[in-house]
Amino acid sequence: MQIDTLLKAVQDGTMDIREAKEQLARAPFEDLGFAKLDTHRALRTGFAEVVYCQNKADDFLVEIFKRLLQTNGEVMGTRCSPQQYELLKKHLPDLHYDPVSRIAKIEKAKTRTGLIAVCTAGTADIAVAEECAQTAEFFGQNVERFYDIGVSGLHRLLAKIDRIQKANCVVAVAGMEGALASVIGGLVANPVIAVPTSVGYGANLHGLSALLTMINSCSNGVATVNIDNGFGAGFLASQINRLATRKE
Amino acid sequence: MQIDTLLKAVQDGTMDIREAKEQLARAPFEDLGFAKLDTHRALRTGFAEVVYCQNKADDFLVEIFKRLLQTNGEVMGTRCSPQQYELLKKHLPDLHYDPVSRIAKIEKAKTRTGLIAVCTAGTADIAVAEECAQTAEFFGQNVERFYDIGVSGLHRLLAKIDRIQKANCVVAVAGMEGALASVIGGLVANPVIAVPTSVGYGANLHGLSALLTMINSCSNGVATVNIDNGFGAGFLASQINRLATRKE
Amino acid sequence: MQIDTLLKAVQDGTMDIREAKEQLARAPFEDLGFAKLDTHRALRTGFAEVVYCQNKADDFLVEIFKRLLQTNGEVMGTRCSPQQYELLKKHLPDLHYDPVSRIAKIEKAKTRTGLIAVCTAGTADIAVAEECAQTAEFFGQNVERFYDIGVSGLHRLLAKIDRIQKANCVVAVAGMEGALASVIGGLVANPVIAVPTSVGYGANLHGLSALLTMINSCSNGVATVNIDNGFGAGFLASQINRLATRKE
Amino acid sequence: MQIDTLLKAVQDGTMDIREAKEQLARAPFEDLGFAKLDTHRALRTGFAEVVYCQNKADDFLVEIFKRLLQTNGEVMGTRCSPQQYELLKKHLPDLHYDPVSRIAKIEKAKTRTGLIAVCTAGTADIAVAEECAQTAEFFGQNVERFYDIGVSGLHRLLAKIDRIQKANCVVAVAGMEGALASVIGGLVANPVIAVPTSVGYGANLHGLSALLTMINSCSNGVATVNIDNGFGAGFLASQINRLATRKE
Amino acid sequence: MQIDTLLKAVQDGTMDIREAKEQLARAPFEDLGFAKLDTHRALRTGFAEVVYCQNKADDFLVEIFKRLLQTNGEVMGTRCSPQQYELLKKHLPDLHYDPVSRIAKIEKAKTRTGLIAVCTAGTADIAVAEECAQTAEFFGQNVERFYDIGVSGLHRLLAKIDRIQKANCVVAVAGMEGALASVIGGLVANPVIAVPTSVGYGANLHGLSALLTMINSCSNGVATVNIDNGFGAGFLASQINRLATRKE
Amino acid sequence: MQIDTLLKAVQDGTMDIREAKEQLARAPFEDLGFAKLDTHRALRTGFAEVVYCQNKADDFLVEIFKRLLQTNGEVMGTRCSPQQYELLKKHLPDLHYDPVSRIAKIEKAKTRTGLIAVCTAGTADIAVAEECAQTAEFFGQNVERFYDIGVSGLHRLLAKIDRIQKANCVVAVAGMEGALASVIGGLVANPVIAVPTSVGYGANLHGLSALLTMINSCSNGVATVNIDNGFGAGFLASQINRLATRKE
Amino acid sequence: MQIDTLLKAVQDGTMDIREAKEQLARAPFEDLGFAKLDTHRALRTGFAEVVYCQNKADDFLVEIFKRLLQTNGEVMGTRCSPQQYELLKKHLPDLHYDPVSRIAKIEKAKTRTGLIAVCTAGTADIAVAEECAQTAEFFGQNVERFYDIGVSGLHRLLAKIDRIQKANCVVAVAGMEGALASVIGGLVANPVIAVPTSVGYGANLHGLSALLTMINSCSNGVATVNIDNGFGAGFLASQINRLATRKE
Amino acid sequence: MQIDTLLKAVQDGTMDIREAKEQLARAPFEDLGFAKLDTHRALRTGFAEVVYCQNKADDFLVEIFKRLLQTNGEVMGTRCSPQQYELLKKHLPDLHYDPVSRIAKIEKAKTRTGLIAVCTAGTADIAVAEECAQTAEFFGQNVERFYDIGVSGLHRLLAKIDRIQKANCVVAVAGMEGALASVIGGLVANPVIAVPTSVGYGANLHGLSALLTMINSCSNGVATVNIDNGFGAGFLASQINRLATRKE
Repeated sequence: MQIDTLLKAVQDGTMDIREAKEQLARAPFEDLGFAKLDTHRALRTGFAEVVYCQNKADDFLVEIFKRLLQTNGEVMGTRCSPQQYELLKKHLPDLHYDPVSRIAKIEKAKTRTGLIAVCTAGTADIAVAEECAQTAEFFGQNVERFYDIGVSGLHRLLAKIDRIQKANCVVAVAGMEGALASVIGGLVANPVIAVPTSVGYGANLHGLSALLTMINSCSNGVATVNIDNGFGAGFLASQINRLATRKE
Repeated sequence: MQIDTLLKAVQDGTMDIREAKEQLARAPFEDLGFAKLDTHRALRTGFAEVVYCQNKADDFLVEIFKRLLQTNGEVMGTRCSPQQYELLKKHLPDLHYDPVSRIAKIEKAKTRTGLIAVCTAGTADIAVAEECAQTAEFFGQNVERFYDIGVSGLHRLLAKIDRIQKANCVVAVAGMEGALASVIGGLVANPVIAVPTSVGYGANLHGLSALLTMINSCSNGVATVNIDNGFGAGFLASQINRLATRKE
Repeated sequence: MQIDTLLKAVQDGTMDIREAKEQLARAPFEDLGFAKLDTHRALRTGFAEVVYCQNKADDFLVEIFKRLLQTNGEVMGTRCSPQQYELLKKHLPDLHYDPVSRIAKIEKAKTRTGLIAVCTAGTADIAVAEECAQTAEFFGQNVERFYDIGVSGLHRLLAKIDRIQKANCVVAVAGMEGALASVIGGLVANPVIAVPTSVGYGANLHGLSALLTMINSCSNGVATVNIDNGFGAGFLASQINRLATRKE
Repeated sequence: MQIDTLLKAVQDGTMDIREAKEQLARAPFEDLGFAKLDTHRALRTGFAEVVYCQNKADDFLVEIFKRLLQTNGEVMGTRCSPQQYELLKKHLPDLHYDPVSRIAKIEKAKTRTGLIAVCTAGTADIAVAEECAQTAEFFGQNVERFYDIGVSGLHRLLAKIDRIQKANCVVAVAGMEGALASVIGGLVANPVIAVPTSVGYGANLHGLSALLTMINSCSNGVATVNIDNGFGAGFLASQINRLATRKE
Repeated sequence: MQIDTLLKAVQDGTMDIREAKEQLARAPFEDLGFAKLDTHRALRTGFAEVVYCQNKADDFLVEIFKRLLQTNGEVMGTRCSPQQYELLKKHLPDLHYDPVSRIAKIEKAKTRTGLIAVCTAGTADIAVAEECAQTAEFFGQNVERFYDIGVSGLHRLLAKIDRIQKANCVVAVAGMEGALASVIGGLVANPVIAVPTSVGYGANLHGLSALLTMINSCSNGVATVNIDNGFGAGFLASQINRLATRKE
Repeated sequence: MQIDTLLKAVQDGTMDIREAKEQLARAPFEDLGFAKLDTHRALRTGFAEVVYCQNKADDFLVEIFKRLLQTNGEVMGTRCSPQQYELLKKHLPDLHYDPVSRIAKIEKAKTRTGLIAVCTAGTADIAVAEECAQTAEFFGQNVERFYDIGVSGLHRLLAKIDRIQKANCVVAVAGMEGALASVIGGLVANPVIAVPTSVGYGANLHGLSALLTMINSCSNGVATVNIDNGFGAGFLASQINRLATRKE
Repeated sequence: MQIDTLLKAVQDGTMDIREAKEQLARAPFEDLGFAKLDTHRALRTGFAEVVYCQNKADDFLVEIFKRLLQTNGEVMGTRCSPQQYELLKKHLPDLHYDPVSRIAKIEKAKTRTGLIAVCTAGTADIAVAEECAQTAEFFGQNVERFYDIGVSGLHRLLAKIDRIQKANCVVAVAGMEGALASVIGGLVANPVIAVPTSVGYGANLHGLSALLTMINSCSNGVATVNIDNGFGAGFLASQINRLATRKE
Repeated sequence: MQIDTLLKAVQDGTMDIREAKEQLARAPFEDLGFAKLDTHRALRTGFAEVVYCQNKADDFLVEIFKRLLQTNGEVMGTRCSPQQYELLKKHLPDLHYDPVSRIAKIEKAKTRTGLIAVCTAGTADIAVAEECAQTAEFFGQNVERFYDIGVSGLHRLLAKIDRIQKANCVVAVAGMEGALASVIGGLVANPVIAVPTSVGYGANLHGLSALLTMINSCSNGVATVNIDNGFGAGFLASQINRLATRKE
C-alpha cells in the first residue's frame, strides 16, 4: 500500500520530510485516508448500504445484491419492480418481496429498539409509509404504524395521539394538502419528519402542493424530505431514534 | 325612453314588425333590458355596491362614495388607506374607519340574522378576517369571530368547535401552510370558505402555498377564494347565510 | 366501556376526583367523545359516505361497497373504472354504472328538493359536470344541467340565464381559460362554485390556468374547488342547496 | 462607398471574380444591403421610432428625443416618469405629457383612418389602455375607447358591442382573471389583441394569471402580448388597421 | 316565432307597451336577437365552423361532420386521429386526410387571395405549421410556406426574407427557445403571429419556454397564441389577410 | 372548575353516569383536558414559548414579552426589529439584543448539553445561522459554529469535518445553490437539518432554488425547513440533541 | 453560379455598377454570401454536422445519414432509437450503435488531442455523459470519464480530482440536487460545463431543480446547458478544448 | 507545522508507521494538503480573488479590500454601491469607481491578450455587460464591446459579426426574450456564454424567461450563467480566452 511505502521511506531515511510532505499534499486520497474515512463512516453509521433498484441494469442489480449479501449477511432493495424481484429471486432464493412497499430483502434477525411512529393521512399513502417503516425496521428500529388518520376525520388521529406522543420520532406521510404534519407537529414533543406524497390530482402538482404545505408548517419541529421519499424518512428517523436509544 | 318609442311606433302602426324586430336584434341593450336586468340583479341581490378603494384616483373615490351614500343611505369601502380616509372624511364627516380591516363606512342600523363563523389560524390573519367579517355584517349577517385557533395548538380550535358547528357558513382564514381549512372542513356540516393569506415567508410564495393547500383539501365542502380576499369570502358567506335564513 | 368504568369508580368512591380528572385529560378520545362526535357529524350532515374508487385495491373496494350498502341501503363510488365496475357488479348485481361520470351506484328512491344549476363551457367538460350533478342528486338535491354554454358563444349562456338565476347554487365547470365562472358570477345572485377542468392543451397547464382564472374572478360570490373535482363541487352545492331548502 | 469600389475594381479588371466573391461573402452587410434594408423597413413601416423612456440615462434620453424630433418632426416616448418629463421639457418646450398613460410627445397634425376599439375590463386598466390608444393615434389610426366593460357586469359590454364590432381590430385590456378577451373574441369578426395587466392581487401573479387566461382563450382570433404592454398592442393594432385601410 | 307574436300583439293592441317592454327585458335572447346575432357573426366572419376532433365521441363526431358538410358544402376537422379518419371515411367517402397536420376535410374549390407566410424554425415544427397553413387555405387565403429557417442558421431565413416581407401576415412557428418570432418581427412591416411549439426537451417545459420568449419579444408587432395552436394562428392570420384584401 | 363540579356531582350521586358521559362527550375540551394537554406539552417539551416579533402590534408585543418573562423567568423574541427592541427595552431594561440574528432576549443561566453543529456556506448566511444557534442555546443545547465553509472552497469544510462529525445534529445553512447540505450529509452519521436561505440573486428565486436542492439531496439523513427559518432549525436540532443527551 | 454570373457581367461590362449594387443589396443571400458563409463556418468550426434523430421521419433520416456520410466520410446521430438504428443499418451496413448513449455512427480514424474530463454524480447519469463524451471524441477531442463520483461520497471525487484538474474543460453531469458542478467548480482552474439530468423524482421537477442548482452555483467558472443535453455539452467542451490545443 | 512534526516523528522513529497512517487518515486537511491545494489552485488559476460587495458589513468590507490589495497589489469589488465606494475611498484613496458596472478597483498595469467579445441586445443590458467586460480585463484579457445589437434590428448585429467571429469567446448579454445568444451562437465558431438579464417587465419574470430561452438555445456551443451574473460570465470567458492564448 502506497501510504505504507511512503512512510516506510521516511522511517528508513530514504525520503526526506519535505518530499514526503509534497507527495502527501498533492496526492492520493484513496490510498491515504479517504477509503478509511469511508470505512469510518460505515462503522459509525451502522446502517448497511441499501440498493435503489429503479432503473438499474439487470446484471448490475444482481451483482450488487450478491456482493452486499456476502458483505453484510443481509441485503435490502427499494423501488424493486416485480420483474426485478423475479430476476433477483433466481440468484437469491431466500429473497423476500413486499409488493406494497416494493422492498426486496434478506434480513438478519435483530432486536429492534426505541420507537418510531409512522402515520399516514389516507390509505393511498401506505405504500410510501411502508417503504419508510420497513427501512427503519431493517436498520434495527422499532416501528409502530398509524394509518388513515388524516385531518378530515380528526378523531381518528386524536384517538391514537397518546401512543404517537411516545415515539422518539414521528413520520407524517400525506398527499393532497398534506395538513397531517402540522397537526401532529402541534401535538408531539419529538421531531416530526414530513413526507409529502404524490397522492391526489389537479392542483396537487404531483405532490408539490403537499411539499409546500409541509415546508410552511406553522408547527415547530417539522422537517421535510422529497415527495414519496419513504426511504429517506426511514433513514433519518432511524438516525434520530438511534440517538435517543444509544444509552439504553 | 327608446324602447317605449319603438313599441309605441309598433302600436301606432308607424313601424312594421319586421323593422321592429331588426332594431331590437341589432340594438340597445341598455335602453331595453340590460339596465333593467342590472336593476333586477341589484334588487334580488340586496347587497349594496362596495367600493374597492385601492388605486382609485382621489376625485373619483370621493364621487363614488357620495353617490352611493345618496342612493343607499349607507356606503362601505375596502382596502382604504389612512390617507384616503382622511380625504373622504372631509366630504363625509360621519365616515367611520377601522385601521385593522382598512374598511371605511357609514352604515345604517340593521338587524343581523343567521350565523357566519369567521376563524383565523393566527393573529396575523386578523386583518383579512376583519375585512370578511365586517363585509358580512354590512350585508346584514350575524358574525362570530374565532381568532388564533390554528392547528399548531389544536385544543384552541377544539374548544370552540361546538359553537363553530352552529354557523350556516364557516370562513377559515389562514396563511403559512393553511391547514386550518381542512381541519375545520372535517368537523362541520355546513360550507367552509377558505381564504389563504400572504402571511408567512420563504416558500409560502406570498400565499400561493396556502392557496394550494386549500384547493387540495382532503375535507369535503371546502371552496377557496383569492389570497387575502376577505371581502370575497364575506360576500359569498353572506349569500350562503342569506339562503339559510331566507325563511326565518 | 372505559368511560363508564371510570365514572362508575368515581360514583363508587373507588377513584377520587383528582385521579379521574387526570385520566380524562390524558386519555381516551375514542371512548369518550370522538366516536360520538363522529356520529353527530354523520347524523347532522345527512350525506352518506361516498367511495373514491381510484387506486383502491380490489378486495378493499368490494368490502367498502358491501358495508356501505348494508349500512345505508344505498352506495355510490366516484372515479370508478369499467374494470372496477365489472368486479363490483359480481358482488352487487344491482349496481348501476355511468361511463361518462364514471359513477357506480345503488340508489334509494328519494324526493329531490331545491335547485342546483350545473353549467359547462364545452362538451368536453361534461364528464366532470356529471360527477358533480349525480353527486348532488344522490344527496337528494334537484339538479338542472346547462351544458356547452361557454363564453365564445355568449348567446347560448344568455338564452338560459333566466333559468340559471333561479338556482340556489350554480356550478360552473370550465377548462381552457375558464372564463365561464366570472361571466355567470356577474349574472346571478346566489353562490357560484367554480370547477376548473384539465380540458385544453399547452399553456392550460393541465387545468392550472383555469384554476387561476377562477381564483382571480372579478365577479363576487365565486369560490373554487380543485381541478376536475366534480364530486367536491357537488358536495358543496348540496350543502348550500340544503341550507336554502331546510325550511321548505 | 466600399461596394462601389469593389464593383469598380471588377469592372476595371483590377480584381478578379474569385477575389470579389470572397470579399462579398466575408464582409460588409452595412455597406451593402443592411443599412439599406433598414431604410426600406422604416419607409415601408411608416411608423416613426418611439422611445421607451424607462431606465434611460438622462443625457441619453434628451439626445434621443432631440434627434428623433429633428428627423421626424414629431417624437413620442412611453413609460416616461414625471421627473423625466420635467427634464425633457427644458429642452423641448412644446412637449406634451399625459400622466395617465405616461406618454410624452410632440405630435404632427395627422388625419386618422380606420377604426381600432380599445376596451378595458375595469378602471384600473385604463393606464395601459391609454398607452395603447395614444400609440395607435400617434401612428395615424382612428381609436375609440370602451372602458370599464368587464364581464362581472356583462350588460355594459353588450351595450357597446354593436360599435366594437365595427372596428378593424379590437384591443382587450384586462387584469385579474382576464376573461374580457374571450368574451369579446366570441362576439366580433375581426382580430382581438389581448393585453393582460398586472391589476389584481394574490393569485393574479402580477398579471401572469390574466396572461394564461388569454393564451388559453376558447374564442378564435385572439392573440396576446406581454403584461401591461399597451405600446405593443397599439403598434400591432396599427399594423392591422393600416392593412384594412390601405386601399381606402 | 315568439318575437313576431309579441310584436304582433302590440300591433294588434292585445298587449300594451309596458307589458311588452317587461317581457323583452326579462326574456328571450334566442328568440329575439342572439340567434340572429349568431347568424350575423357567421355571415360577417365568412369562416365556416371547424371541428376540433380530439376527444369527441365517435357518434357525435360523425354527426357533426355530416351536418356541417350538408350546411356548408365543405367540412374540416383538426387534430383528427387516423382512427377517427377511418371512421369518418365510412360515412364521408370523399374525405381527404393529411397525416402531418392531422386535418381531415372535404373542401370546395375556391380562389385564394392575399398572402400569408407560414415559417418554422425546424422540421419538427412542420406539423403545427401545416395545421395553420391548411386552416388559412380552407378559409380562402393564399399561403406560402418557409420551413426550417431557424435562427441557428440565420442565412436560411435571410435568403427568404424578401418574399416573407411581402406577406400581409407572417406566422412564426418555433419550439425550443422560440427566437424565430423576434428575428422575423424585426425584419417585416406587417403583423407576426407567434406560435410556440412543444418541440424540445428539458427546460423547454413542454413549450412554455418558447411561449415566454415570444410574449417577451423585443420586436414590435408580435402577438402570441397557445402552444401548438396552429389552427388559432391560421384563423387569426386569415382575419388579418382578409382585412388586407377586402378591397381587391 | 367545571370538570371538578361534574365529577363531584357523580361522586355525590347527584348526577348519574349516563348524564355525566353525555356532558363529557358533547363538551368542554378547555375545561377538561386540552388546557391541561397544553400544559402537558409545555412540561414535556421543556422549551419555553418564543415570540415571533415580525408584524406584531406594539402593545401586544410588549404584553407578550412581559407575561412570558413573568411565567418563565426568561423570554426570547425572533425577527425583532431595532425599533421593536427600542420599544421593548423601555419596559424590560435587561433585554439584550443581537442585531445580526435580530434576537431580543433575557436569558436565565443554564448548563448547555450535547452538541449541535451550525454550518454556513457563506458569510451572508450567518444571520439565519445565528437565529438557529441562539435559539438552540436558549433551549439549553451546546452549539458550535462553522461559518463560511461552502463547497466552492471545499478544503474549508474538510478542515472542520472532524469536529462537525461529533455533533448529534448538524444544521447546514446555505443560499445560492445550497449544495452544502448534500456534501455534509455525505460526511456525517447524524441527522442534517438543511436551511435554505434567500441569499443570492436571479434564478435563486428568493431561496426556492436552494430549497429544491436540499429537498432533492442525494445524501441520506437530510431534511429541510422553510427558507431563512433559522428558528425552526434551531428548535428541531434542540429536540434531536435533547433525545441524544437525555440519559447523560 | 449566380454570383459568378453577376460578377462576370460586371467584368464584361454588360452590367453597370449601379445595377449590380442594387441586385446585391436586394437580393440573394444564398447565391452570394450566405451559402458561402455557411461553408466558411463549417470550415472554421471543423465539426461535421450531427443528426438529432428523435422524431425524424424514416425516409428523411436515411437520406440525411447517407448524404452526410458521402460529404464527410463519417456520420453521427444522437438520440437514435434501436428501431431507427435497425432501419439505418440496412442502408449503411458499417453503422455502429451504442445503446447506452443511443449514438449511431460511422467514424473516420482520427488522432484525439487535449483533454476533456466527463464526470457524473451517479450511475444513472451515464447515458447523458456518454452522449457528451462520444460527441467530443467524434469531434477529435481526447476524453477521460469519471463516473459515479457524486457528493454523497465525497472521497470518490477527491480521489480523482488530481486527474480532473488536468483537463482543459470539465463536464459535470448530475441529476437529483446537482451539487456536483459546484464542488468540481471549486476544485479546478478550467471551465466547467454543468449538465443537469432528469434523474431523480418528486421535487426534482424532471431536472429543473438540478438546472437551478447549477445556474446558482457559488463556484466561479461554471456554465449550464439544457437538461439531459449531453450533445450540447460535448460540442461546447470540444470548442474549448480545441482552443486550448490549437497551437500544440 | 503539524505535518512536519508528524513526519519528523516518523523519521526519528518516535512514531511508528501505523500510528502515522491513522493520524493522517483521520485528520488535518488544512495542515497537510488542503491549504496547500488552495494555494495550488490560486497559483494555477492566476485570477486574484474578487470581492462581492453587496450586503457585506462595512468593517468587513474595508478589511477585505485592504488585505487583498496588500497581497495582490491590486483589488477589485463588484456590486459596490456608491455608499460603499465612499467608505472604501477613505481607506484606499487610489480606488477607482465605475457607476455603470458598479465596480470599484485598484488595478495594476497589465498586458491584455486574446479576444473576448462582449455583446448586448439593448442599452439597458450594458451595466451587466460592463461588469463582465471589466472583470475579464482585470484578469488580463482583451475585450471588445458590441452593445445594442439585439435581434429586433438584425443588421446591427450582422454589421459587426465579422469582428465578433474573431473572438475566442463571445458573451451574449440580453434581457426580455434573450434571443441574441441563439442568433450569435449560429454565427460564430467559438464558445458563447449567455447572460440573461432582468431587463424587461411582465412575463419576463425578472429574467427567468431570458434564462429559459438561453438554456433551450437551438444553436450549439451556448452555455448559460445566472441572471445578471456579469462577473461569472467574465470569469468563465477569461478562463476560455486564457486557454486559447496560453501558448502565444
